[in-house]
Amino acid sequence: MIKLYGFSVSNYYNMVKLALLEKGLPFEEVPFYAGTSPEALAISPRGKVPVLQVEQGFINETSVILEYIEQSQKGTPLLPSDPFERAQVLALAKEIELYIELPGRACYPEAFFGMTLPDAIKEKTKAELLLGMAALGRHAKFSPYVAGDSLSVADLYFLFSVPLACGVAKKLFGIDLLAEMPKAKALLEFLGGNPNVQRVAADREAAMPAFMAMIAAKK
Amino acid sequence: MIKLYGFSVSNYYNMVKLALLEKGLPFEEVPFYAGTSPEALAISPRGKVPVLQVEQGFINETSVILEYIEQSQKGTPLLPSDPFERAQVLALAKEIELYIELPGRACYPEAFFGMTLPDAIKEKTKAELLLGMAALGRHAKFSPYVAGDSLSVADLYFLFSVPLACGVAKKLFGIDLLAEMPKAKALLEFLGGNPNVQRVAADREAAMPAFMAMIAAKK
Repeated sequence: MIKLYGFSVSNYYNMVKLALLEKGLPFEEVPFYAGTSPEALAISPRGKVPVLQVEQGFINETSVILEYIEQSQKGTPLLPSDPFERAQVLALAKEIELYIELPGRACYPEAFFGMTLPDAIKEKTKAELLLGMAALGRHAKFSPYVAGDSLSVADLYFLFSVPLACGVAKKLFGIDLLAEMPKAKALLEFLGGNPNVQRVAADREAAMPAFMAMIAAKK
Repeated sequence: MIKLYGFSVSNYYNMVKLALLEKGLPFEEVPFYAGTSPEALAISPRGKVPVLQVEQGFINETSVILEYIEQSQKGTPLLPSDPFERAQVLALAKEIELYIELPGRACYPEAFFGMTLPDAIKEKTKAELLLGMAALGRHAKFSPYVAGDSLSVADLYFLFSVPLACGVAKKLFGIDLLAEMPKAKALLEFLGGNPNVQRVAADREAAMPAFMAMIAAKK
């Protein structure tokens, strides 16, 4: 059986977990906090989560894991079969990752974990988030899903990246990134009604206290 | 015919250009500097290069373009057909992008274009580059190519990311990122002997003066 290494607070872990649930695939969750121990680095070369373990070995990087699952496993498709349509979905996912999730991530320590970041880092995040959300507004369909009329890999990135970026923008810059994006807001609400999304959110809530205690102990 | 939008100084543009050359596919180069004009944003939602134009429309994001070409076009394969082996190559490419190219990129303005960056940005890049190169050392095979015995998408990322990261590390931090990676050094030299790599490098050299003049005019 497929094993998913990581922890329920990680947004990238939750992208893969929701993909497996939506595809209806059996999998086992293996608690793994990555880091820089030799044991962790033997599983993940850069000490990151999630990692997928299959018969042949470990697969790293969320985008790679999601495509591997799509290519090798059964279940509801999360990518179109036509190469051009598939490329549009993957481009949307990549744009959310590079231009929204990663700039937001640079400010997670201050927005969510009580640390203080240099102004230069925050200014860079602010500028990039505004450009990234504008790009999403131009490229996404929101009809009702990010890339069209069915749930896709782009929605996984959207669901687990945009609310965090909004949290950063609100807390650090007093900006509502979705103010002029009613369809994006509506999609977040709609996705919130999905039972698998609710299960992932419940697991996240349950894991949060232990995670915050771990962060506090490291400070 | 496939059209490749971008400019010869862009390292991401050159990844796709080398892929097309190595696969032996005919293509036309269309000069495109992206940016934030309405015309540019109609081609690239985030105003980036490269963009591939095919019969059905535009495809953005280098990693997506490379996979689209692989999936839809003929020519020498740059990805294995086995899903697990394919995932290993794509993970190596992604690790080079996220943990080497992007941290390095944050410092290109000071390293290559005479601008000055805040210390916080440089410190972040330095820490991330050291971790990223260590991850590459753990994951790459260098036998002699990054992912094994044939040229792959991972080599495109390696060739057009690592020398720039090395330039950043040397100029800003006085560090030789390849000091303890003789096989990586050897691969860069070996790739330098490839006629298509030489053609891309020659086009880059030829385009550089006009590009530097454009940068200078914007300062």
